[in-house]
Amino acid sequence: MTVFDVAVWREGRVRMLDQRHLPGAEIYHHYDSAAEVAEAIREMVVRGAPAIGCAAAFGVAVEAFRLARSGLPDSWTEAMAPGLARLRDSRPTAVNLVWALERMAPLLRSGDPARVPERLLQEAEAIRAEDIASCQAMGAAGAAILPAAPEGRPLAIMTHCNAGALATAGYGTALGVIRAARERLGQVVVYATETRPYLQGARLTAWELVQDGFEVTLMTDSMAGHAMSRGLVDVVVVGADRVAANGDVANKIGTYGHAVLARRHGIPFLVACPLSTIDLATPTGAQIPIEERVAAEVTHFAGHRVAAQGVRVFNPAFDVTPAELVSALVTERGVVQVPDALRMRALFGS
Amino acid sequence: MTVFDVAVWREGRVRMLDQRHLPGAEIYHHYDSAAEVAEAIREMVVRGAPAIGCAAAFGVAVEAFRLARSGLPDSWTEAMAPGLARLRDSRPTAVNLVWALERMAPLLRSGDPARVPERLLQEAEAIRAEDIASCQAMGAAGAAILPAAPEGRPLAIMTHCNAGALATAGYGTALGVIRAARERLGQVVVYATETRPYLQGARLTAWELVQDGFEVTLMTDSMAGHAMSRGLVDVVVVGADRVAANGDVANKIGTYGHAVLARRHGIPFLVACPLSTIDLATPTGAQIPIEERVAAEVTHFAGHRVAAQGVRVFNPAFDVTPAELVSALVTERGVVQVPDALRMRALFGS
Repeated sequence: MTVFDVAVWREGRVRMLDQRHLPGAEIYHHYDSAAEVAEAIREMVVRGAPAIGCAAAFGVAVEAFRLARSGLPDSWTEAMAPGLARLRDSRPTAVNLVWALERMAPLLRSGDPARVPERLLQEAEAIRAEDIASCQAMGAAGAAILPAAPEGRPLAIMTHCNAGALATAGYGTALGVIRAARERLGQVVVYATETRPYLQGARLTAWELVQDGFEVTLMTDSMAGHAMSRGLVDVVVVGADRVAANGDVANKIGTYGHAVLARRHGIPFLVACPLSTIDLATPTGAQIPIEERVAAEVTHFAGHRVAAQGVRVFNPAFDVTPAELVSALVTERGVVQVPDALRMRALFGS
Repeated sequence: MTVFDVAVWREGRVRMLDQRHLPGAEIYHHYDSAAEVAEAIREMVVRGAPAIGCAAAFGVAVEAFRLARSGLPDSWTEAMAPGLARLRDSRPTAVNLVWALERMAPLLRSGDPARVPERLLQEAEAIRAEDIASCQAMGAAGAAILPAAPEGRPLAIMTHCNAGALATAGYGTALGVIRAARERLGQVVVYATETRPYLQGARLTAWELVQDGFEVTLMTDSMAGHAMSRGLVDVVVVGADRVAANGDVANKIGTYGHAVLARRHGIPFLVACPLSTIDLATPTGAQIPIEERVAAEVTHFAGHRVAAQGVRVFNPAFDVTPAELVSALVTERGVVQVPDALRMRALFGS
């Protein structure tokens, strides 16, 4: 089983694979403070909600070790506040970020103050290990409900963006389902949308699946409808950045369009995400804030302007897929078929 | 009214805007022979079937003036044959190219031989003027059926690819409707999709509409659904590459997805195209061949490889939007509401 080192602890520092340089170069950076990790998250060295949560957790730990080097603080809570605030503000839509920080926070106020850095590191390592285990559970649950492959060719799974090893602690949510599907079925083929503007599909999903020995076909986002109309796609599996209490799914921009097309063509549309991505405090997708990003992501590429001067830009990073378009939500605790508020609550009650 | 000088006659020469350098630079070339114009067409200085027909017509005229400078030829038909052949071969599939050459040919054999160059020029100017007039008729017909602007803001029109001035003699089909809409309503705003993989929206549509004083907002193709779900788009207007006898529309890849989303959101979806684009010999969209283009268009961006090595590529240039998703087909002879085979035949009968 492949596990990628996305954000890990190495010799007293946070080490992260710089995903901005993939697939051209495999570059690793080391960070010594929460501010540095926050900046790396903001600059998208790492992306994907669970990976961000994992990176932020290590960011908390490294901040505590940094502070401890100048002596034990009077109050860990006070001393850590600026670093935690920077981490919290680094990506507004990522719910796992807040979740990871809230899980770490009580450790600042309990037990031996001298052992706070160590406890935070243990907790960060636990977050990472749990994420990998959770992705594997999700993978198995998702693989079990895939449709059968059509006569004469392997099952063709379409995915969008990168809900992969690179977006998590190392195994992947949507791509975890694809990995588990291959283990179960022997062979699957993958259609990856390039995922403009940031090209996570072309750069990251294609990279990690090729690394992992899959047959991957890349297409632009605009080709999904044509591919479906020609019968090339049997099932769509995507990740999620935040799921509301009623099952509405905020995910990478373009997801909604794929879901609408999948429905038109009677193709199952699965969303794989950990429980930590489900935000019961957000009633529906309408309350999920949608981050708007800088114009240059759309107007430029590699420092080269491609769009006409004088044009305005609309650059939302996410969209909302209504629950009614989701065939099943796949979590580490099992599958919610045709999610709605009732079934979502039942998942947490079980 | 703005008319762009895509391919025009200037001081005894053919002048063309080099669209390969847009939007970075506005470079005009001058041509003195049919061979030079043919080379420019082959190299895609100009693109779009009506624009190519117009350029070729001026190419015929300039060739005649060039020959006349060495004295009146014994036979215009013989003297012009090599130049005409080069023009004809420059883009073998462009139907308007052959159409323009066939329209010019009889002028070589009739009337005063000394006045052949002048007559050819008049005919080329007529071809250009007729294309502009046809686009304006289309524009007026389309503008007349647009929905009303919502309270409090101008009408917002979304378009895909470049069905603009730059693809025609100078006014545009879909963008002609948008130009006419502004004349009628005082103000409209435009959402242009970038149109991967070739970025005609970002490069050409954004450029020509900014030049023309429009407020244009660029977005990736994947953002159309989100924009519609937020109520930002009131109507979609696109062009067509070929329309089947039943009203199915082949157009730039991504059009189908926009049409499906527009239907879901109750947004009118208009297709603007001249009668010459309607192919009554093709019964439905299923018979329209879909060109598949080179992988590098998807794996590379602005000349730079972005996709992981080892990935396969799916790169269809067009998709088919079924007639049932088309609210109206807008031609220079008027509008076909909810096109089907019967109403399409009626358009030609009228």
